[in-house]
Parts: sequence; C-alpha cells; structure tokens
Amino acid sequence: MARSRSTQLLRHAGEKLAHLGHRYRKLNVRDLPAQALLHVQFDDPALRDALAQVAEAEAVVVATPVFKAAYSGVLKSFLDLLPQDGLAGKLVLPLATGGSQSHMLALDYALRPVLSALSAKHVLPSIYATDAQVQWDGDNGILLDLAIAARIDEGVERLSASLIALREVSDALFEPVPFSQVRCSV
Amino acid sequence: MARSRSTQLLRHAGEKLAHLGHRYRKLNVRDLPAQALLHVQFDDPALRDALAQVAEAEAVVVATPVFKAAYSGVLKSFLDLLPQDGLAGKLVLPLATGGSQSHMLALDYALRPVLSALSAKHVLPSIYATDAQVQWDGDNGILLDLAIAARIDEGVERLSASLIALREVSDALFEPVPFSQVRCSV
Amino acid sequence: MARSRSTQLLRHAGEKLAHLGHRYRKLNVRDLPAQALLHVQFDDPALRDALAQVAEAEAVVVATPVFKAAYSGVLKSFLDLLPQDGLAGKLVLPLATGGSQSHMLALDYALRPVLSALSAKHVLPSIYATDAQVQWDGDNGILLDLAIAARIDEGVERLSASLIALREVSDALFEPVPFSQVRCSV
Amino acid sequence: MARSRSTQLLRHAGEKLAHLGHRYRKLNVRDLPAQALLHVQFDDPALRDALAQVAEAEAVVVATPVFKAAYSGVLKSFLDLLPQDGLAGKLVLPLATGGSQSHMLALDYALRPVLSALSAKHVLPSIYATDAQVQWDGDNGILLDLAIAARIDEGVERLSASLIALREVSDALFEPVPFSQVRCSV
Repeated sequence: MARSRSTQLLRHAGEKLAHLGHRYRKLNVRDLPAQALLHVQFDDPALRDALAQVAEAEAVVVATPVFKAAYSGVLKSFLDLLPQDGLAGKLVLPLATGGSQSHMLALDYALRPVLSALSAKHVLPSIYATDAQVQWDGDNGILLDLAIAARIDEGVERLSASLIALREVSDALFEPVPFSQVRCSV
Repeated sequence: MARSRSTQLLRHAGEKLAHLGHRYRKLNVRDLPAQALLHVQFDDPALRDALAQVAEAEAVVVATPVFKAAYSGVLKSFLDLLPQDGLAGKLVLPLATGGSQSHMLALDYALRPVLSALSAKHVLPSIYATDAQVQWDGDNGILLDLAIAARIDEGVERLSASLIALREVSDALFEPVPFSQVRCSV
Repeated sequence: MARSRSTQLLRHAGEKLAHLGHRYRKLNVRDLPAQALLHVQFDDPALRDALAQVAEAEAVVVATPVFKAAYSGVLKSFLDLLPQDGLAGKLVLPLATGGSQSHMLALDYALRPVLSALSAKHVLPSIYATDAQVQWDGDNGILLDLAIAARIDEGVERLSASLIALREVSDALFEPVPFSQVRCSV
Repeated sequence: MARSRSTQLLRHAGEKLAHLGHRYRKLNVRDLPAQALLHVQFDDPALRDALAQVAEAEAVVVATPVFKAAYSGVLKSFLDLLPQDGLAGKLVLPLATGGSQSHMLALDYALRPVLSALSAKHVLPSIYATDAQVQWDGDNGILLDLAIAARIDEGVERLSASLIALREVSDALFEPVPFSQVRCSV
C-alpha cells in the first residue's frame, strides 16, 4: 500500500495543500474493510466515517493507478457507495499514475464522467504521471520528475485559489463558513 | 445478490447458451472473498479458481449494473486482476442494467475500452436493459420485457454462431478443440 | 439551420445570459464557409473572425445535436481549428439535444474530454434535452419542457456566477477587466 | 492531403489487403465536396458515390489523425451521414496517428463507441501510431517503424481471416457471395 505511487502522489498533494493553509485528511480506500466496501455494509464504522469525510469536504483530491485503461476497481467500489449527488458543491482534482504515457486519457475519458455523474461542482484539469516520473526514494517516499512536480504545484494552487474564491462568494452571499477542510481519497 | 437484476440477466443468457449446446459456468464476482479480491491475494483458492475459469473460457458474458454512469467497482476490481491480455482470443458479450435509459452509453464508452485493453478478440454489440424492463417475478426469477428478451436471444445466437465459426476455422487450420466452454462473469 | 433544436437551445441560453447582464455573440458553425472549415484555410475572413470570437470570449456555451452517440462532426471540425489551449482560462457550458434519453452520456463521455484537451478552465455540468423536450412553436421558436427550461436557467445562472467570481478574483489580483463577453458556438 | 500520415497508413493497409487477395477502394473524405458534406446534400453525386461505397463494403478500414484527444471532425462529419445502422454486418479496422503516445486511448474511448453506434458487426483491435513512427520518405511515401508495420500486418491479416471466415459461414448457410470488396475510408 505504502508502495503505491498514486498514494504517494496524493500525500504530496496533501502536503502542498497544508502548506497553502488548508486542512486535509487522508482516506486510503484500500484500508477500508474489504467486506464492508464490496458488500455495501453502511453500518460499518470505518466505512461510515470515510463517507462522512467525503460528505464534509469542500474539495476532494482523487488519486488512482490506471489499470486496464481505466481507474482502479477499488476506487470505483468506493465511489459506488457515495450518494448520487455525493460530490455536489465540491471541487475535485484527479491524479493518476500509469505504466506508460499511452494511458493518459483514462482520466478524462473514464474518471471524469464518473465524477460528473456524482455532480461534482468543478473537476479541475487532471494530472497524469508515468511510473518513470514517480521514482521511489529509499524509505523517504518519492522523487518526482520536475515537470510533474510543477504540474502538481500548479494543480494544487489552482485548487486552493478556487476554494478561496468559493468561500469569498459564500461569505458575501451567505453566512461565514469554517476553514476549508480538504480531504483526499485514494 | 440473488436480487441483482444483472445477475439474473446473466443467468438468463447462460440458459440460452446451454440451450444452444454450449457448456458454461457461472462466476459471481460478489461471491469471491472480498479481502482476496481487493488486496490481490493470488494465493486465495477461490480467486485462483475464478481466474482459471476466465483463462479457460472461449467466451465471456459480462454483466454489470450501471452505477455512477459506469460499470460497477466490484466488476472492475475483478478485471484488474486479469493479466494484461486476459481476454485475448476470447469473445465477449457485455450486458448491463441501469435505473434509466440515460445510462445506456456506459457500456460502449466505459466498459468496452476496458475489454479492449484486455485484448478481447471480439466484443459483441452490448445489451442494456432498464430496471423497468427486468421485473422481479416472485421467487421464480425475472420477467423480461419482450424487446430485451429478443435482444438477448439475438446476442446469444450471435455469440454462439461466432463461437462455432471460430472453432471451424481452428479445426481447419489447427488441431480439433474441445467443446466450447462459455463462462459468465458478473 | 434555423430548424436545429440545439441552435434554438443555444439562442435561449444566450438570451438568459443577456438578461443577467452579459454580452454575447452567436457563432453558428454551419454558417462558416464549408471549404475553409474542412480545409483549414486560416486566411478565410469569416473563419478568422469566428476563431477570434472564441479567443476573446470569457465563456463559451457549446451546443450540439448528438449524432451516432457523439457530438456532431461539424462542431468537431471547428474545435479542431482552435489552438491546443484554445479554451484556456475560459468557462464552458455544454448543451446537447438528441433523439432519445439513451444518448445523454455522449456529452460527458465524448464532448467533455475534447473540451478538457482544449484546456478549458472549467466545464460546467452538461445539459441534455431530448427532441421531445424541445418542441417547435410555429415560427416563434421553441417550447421547452419545464424541467429542461429550469436546468438551463440553473446552468446559465451558475455560468454567470462563475464569471462574476472570476472577475472579482481578477480585480483583486490584477487590473480591472472589461465587461464579460460571452460567446456561443454551435 | 497526400501529406497526411493517417492517409498514408491507410494506403499501406490497403496494399496489404490487396496482397492478400482482397479488392479495395480508397475513399478520402477530405476530397468530397465540403459544402455537400457539411450541409448534408445527399443529391451530390460524389457524396452519393462515397456513401454507396461504404454500403457495399464487407469491411471498412478507418484512419484518422487524433486532434484534440479524438477523431477528426471531418471523419465524424462523414460518419454522421451514414444511416443509423450504416456499418451493420461489416468488419471495421480502426487506425490512427497522433502527435504523441498520450492520445492512444482516443481510438478506443472515442471512435469505437461511434462505430458501435453505427452497428458495426466487429471492430477489430485498434492500431495507433505516433508521428515519429510514420516518417516521410521523400516522394515515395512513408517509412514505418517496425513495431507499427508488424501491428498493421497483423491487423490486416486478422481482418482478412475474419472476412474469409464470414464468407464461409455465409457460403454454408446461404448463397455464395461475390469476392470481398474492402473499402477504406479516411
């Protein structure tokens, strides 16, 4: 698990978000009880907590490996448990890693329609990294290709700016909202 | 599980195949050990058996409910475990059920590219049924809308004809092959 | 042309935008010189003007009929002429009409990835109407199904709010920008 | 036009088909009258002839450049003119060329669903070549990367075998059919 490149990419994005002043929580779908996830046991406390995390988030960063030209089945199993409008009002930043450049379009052709079906308010431009661009660095995590690191910086900054803009609109029109809670889902 | 419309549709297609003289085995992905499926435990006997079933099949009928505008995460979790060319040489007939007509294209836009990525020899025209077209009939199974029943008949006959044609080509060019084993995966 | 439902839907959205105080220009791709469009003659004045319209717009409302499970070839021929980042910084609202509910996903699975490839800043939730929901009303235009009319109102209001929010962010960070020019492309 | 890589790839596939004993005709969509194509003038003789070519073919090899993460608008404009079941009973081999490996999935995610919507009997595995794999060779045409040349050989042989198998089934069940006429469409 810890050896998943997409999880590491997600951790990296989370740290950047924290650096920009946002709170976030990590959610590793693979750590959820498999039985509860696949058999839709909404009374499982871990599952319920994970779904509540998504429900409360203002933004969700989703990361997935690309398998068989699409998002992972595990990620989709979790998204299947969200309510129909489970991403309504939320910003989403999609990340993925894959064996080669050939599968880059899997994010926009496969994952994005699912995020749209979940009524995401705004799906930001996707970021795709090949395995070669995300190298393992001993026990310290990952070494990112400079181009990918720059794209993630840009993506996270764009997400941050959109969150702040949304909050200002909310402030102006409605009551103040608490400090943003960005949560990440793998 | 038994109450899944797509599983019932699959059972129906299996019976039609048997009627046309083909052997088949059922494979209900939801019955596989969840832990082994999600954590890729290839040493699990049930999982190993399921993967062997697919490996040995000449044709695979795949059925899925449409959730969030795409195939189910459970199905994709199983497909993720197949080898890269896990459907090479095989015929595939995709079936799906969904809440409304609006999600019909999920089969061709979402599932078909995954089946292509698995090197399927030939993915036959997809068949999509709305929940209203697959009614529960007490404990006896399902009542199918006539148009859907006809489409499944046609799809199964086409699959059968393609299997026979493939076998004749093989007979002519190579050694005889055993009687077709069609297996169904949910 | 005037008898195209998607063009009428676009006109309707344009009027709503005007009502909310936005300027817009119409662009009917079918009115462009066919030879120049298909043979990429950038020196054609009408084509050059159309491309400049898109370049200058802050937002683009795109409307297309669904043919063969995807956007029209004419629309794609025009999008093919835009620069690689031809929608960068722009908001996009996709609309479509189709013969039946079955082709609803064509917008999210087919058009949206193309808009993403053009670097659209934000593609708003798509709106799909069946032909039955867009009835001809003599020479006066169209009669919209109430649910569709409400979805367009909501979509246009969301587009308007996003435009205003973007402009406020720009005002704060950079110099003032002129009043928004929303242009519509068929 | 002659300088289009996808057209050259198509010519190459046509020659391989001829070598295997199949007749074929070329159809360059860009050579059709632009006005007739975009304005759906079915009384145009060149357009009528092109549509008849497709109608009579047993197999269609389709080649397209990838623009904006999808097939070209010109190709789609032509496909839009085919009847709803315009590829029924036909085999289809999709080819594409693109600037980089990143757009490989455009064939399976974008073109294949359109071919399915046209009721293609069987869409063979797609072949995608990057521009670097299709080099210009002075006035003599193209130099193909060996891997791509091998994939096209394999694709054309598979198409040929499927055509022959189909014909044998037809021979057995129905009356004899004339020698296959494979036509290529760009």
